[in-house]
Amino acid sequence: MDNVFNFSAGPAGLPKAVMEQAQAEFINWNELGTSVMEISHRSKEFIKVAEDSEQDLRDLLNIPDNYKVLFCQGGARAQFAAVPLNLLGQAKKATYIDAGYWAESAIQEAQKYCQVDVFEAKVEKEGKLAVADTKEWRIDPEAAYVHFCPNETIDGIEISGLPVTDKPIVADMSSNILSREIDVSKYGVIYAGAQKNIGPAGICIAIVRDDLLELAHDLLPSFISYKTLAEKDSMFNTPPTFAWYLSGLVFKWLKAEGGVAAMEKVNKEKAELLYRAIDGSDFYKNNVHPDNRSRMNVPFQLAKPELDAVFLEQAKERGLVSLKGHRAVGGMRASIYNAMPLAGVQALVDFMQEFEAKNA
Amino acid sequence: MDNVFNFSAGPAGLPKAVMEQAQAEFINWNELGTSVMEISHRSKEFIKVAEDSEQDLRDLLNIPDNYKVLFCQGGARAQFAAVPLNLLGQAKKATYIDAGYWAESAIQEAQKYCQVDVFEAKVEKEGKLAVADTKEWRIDPEAAYVHFCPNETIDGIEISGLPVTDKPIVADMSSNILSREIDVSKYGVIYAGAQKNIGPAGICIAIVRDDLLELAHDLLPSFISYKTLAEKDSMFNTPPTFAWYLSGLVFKWLKAEGGVAAMEKVNKEKAELLYRAIDGSDFYKNNVHPDNRSRMNVPFQLAKPELDAVFLEQAKERGLVSLKGHRAVGGMRASIYNAMPLAGVQALVDFMQEFEAKNA
Repeated sequence: MDNVFNFSAGPAGLPKAVMEQAQAEFINWNELGTSVMEISHRSKEFIKVAEDSEQDLRDLLNIPDNYKVLFCQGGARAQFAAVPLNLLGQAKKATYIDAGYWAESAIQEAQKYCQVDVFEAKVEKEGKLAVADTKEWRIDPEAAYVHFCPNETIDGIEISGLPVTDKPIVADMSSNILSREIDVSKYGVIYAGAQKNIGPAGICIAIVRDDLLELAHDLLPSFISYKTLAEKDSMFNTPPTFAWYLSGLVFKWLKAEGGVAAMEKVNKEKAELLYRAIDGSDFYKNNVHPDNRSRMNVPFQLAKPELDAVFLEQAKERGLVSLKGHRAVGGMRASIYNAMPLAGVQALVDFMQEFEAKNA
Repeated sequence: MDNVFNFSAGPAGLPKAVMEQAQAEFINWNELGTSVMEISHRSKEFIKVAEDSEQDLRDLLNIPDNYKVLFCQGGARAQFAAVPLNLLGQAKKATYIDAGYWAESAIQEAQKYCQVDVFEAKVEKEGKLAVADTKEWRIDPEAAYVHFCPNETIDGIEISGLPVTDKPIVADMSSNILSREIDVSKYGVIYAGAQKNIGPAGICIAIVRDDLLELAHDLLPSFISYKTLAEKDSMFNTPPTFAWYLSGLVFKWLKAEGGVAAMEKVNKEKAELLYRAIDGSDFYKNNVHPDNRSRMNVPFQLAKPELDAVFLEQAKERGLVSLKGHRAVGGMRASIYNAMPLAGVQALVDFMQEFEAKNA
């Protein structure tokens, strides 16, 4: 099938130009006669991939010098354990803000390691799903850190503010990193599994403020130790080199596209286009309050759920794939990460309007 | 560069046929119009990849039904922590056999979690590096398990026997899995980082006997819990889907090549050819006793180490790449995993003989 627009929530579509380059040089990379995945991670050729990708990410997010950039194995679920094991120090508590499924998954894992002070942030606002204002978030004075997930992929909720606290702020940005401008200096740790806005599944970025490297639990496995990874330039273990290389290509693509500010502008346009189409119709609905609608994941339901299967089938025939909603919410979900062009969202909106005209 | 033979110790070369297939279907896999890495791990298409790869591995290694096959994130270093955290139960001790660098790395990590009873197995035999007979290995009666690494990539040592014990045997087979026939039923846990004989870095196979799933430490991170991974079909977290898919292609290639028995036959031929060339010359030497020479990693030194750089340069011009020895040993190292054809070893031997003729 050609000309596919892929709305997968993750592993998600990657930029077409990146995938074409990776295909072209797949078995003969850098004129070496082998793939980039078939060489030592300690070779000078791969070290350059590693260094370039770190620098490009630093440029894209304007990461201050007192932050380490780590390329870790695994994804966010590995970080759900790594965060408390790396950051608790002598503390026995941490505050976790609960605004959805992924925050709750992080809470469940953290409960192995500490007393988790949960702040329930989901609220109803004007009959819609919303998140309490960050100023209202209650943070335990004894907490080692405050953890939150600023974009919840399942409900399609996004939080644009930050906890008001002097504790280190830890953010699971798996699903919205690089999609909007952020001020890294406000955070203690930012982590992000790659498979939505960065690269393929199996690699995870952690951006860690220097002063948080000395707080590890005795039983912290070395391969998820921020300090060990920082000391070894993310090569304590053999890193997932192909995933790292592809992530690096995505960073170069982002820079060529104008960086995070340019990406944010397009992401706003894409999201507005799709939410406008939903709101302008009685046939589709989205249940999230406008203040907290995600720019990355747009769930929507059909007024006639009995047509869900037909919708998905006809969308697929048009090359609009992976639109099925998460089983917890039902209906549809369009994930429109950085790699999704505006044309893809326009094609979806066109199809939605045609489908409505035929079936309303 | 064309016609390269890649002797990298790891990440290592993959079968050429596999890489060509992966390249051909890189951006349009299974006629989906996307890459296999751009679809949900829970899609029916990826579930088939997962199921086929497990079945193919079961067929290749004749894995009994009372063993789980897990596709884990990370590599062997993750397992260095995962093994004690999963298997210690109420025990406070484990026996680790030390026959080289990788065994020692596993020991270092295990010391976080238990009292490690180390049996030093490296011995000198007839002036050569060797490993004590497995019957002599002393195993602590209170050990929860016995850990060993049957192939040490740096020294080029391989152990063909097994510990004589009724404790669960845990083997780090990262560098020799699928290279020779084994009887899985003799092991408690076999694990192997993919990047030598299986696939790209970033995925690790664990084959775990059922009765060992209930011994986890309270602080075991869920993403490396054998029980959790077994219950969730290795999809507790988003797995490294592309690495998994490529590993699956390697398994299919192995089956097409005649399976592990056929592979073992070729691996013996390859190793014998190379060791014969080394032993038949005064210009090259290998320091490992014939009883323990690795079929996978063949280190050798030049009688004139001042020619090392010239040797490497001229080898590279002939398409024989990544022959530089590990910094701990120096000289050369030819890693000749499953993906290295006999023709590659023959080309190396031909070059070695020509080089010797010119420089002896």
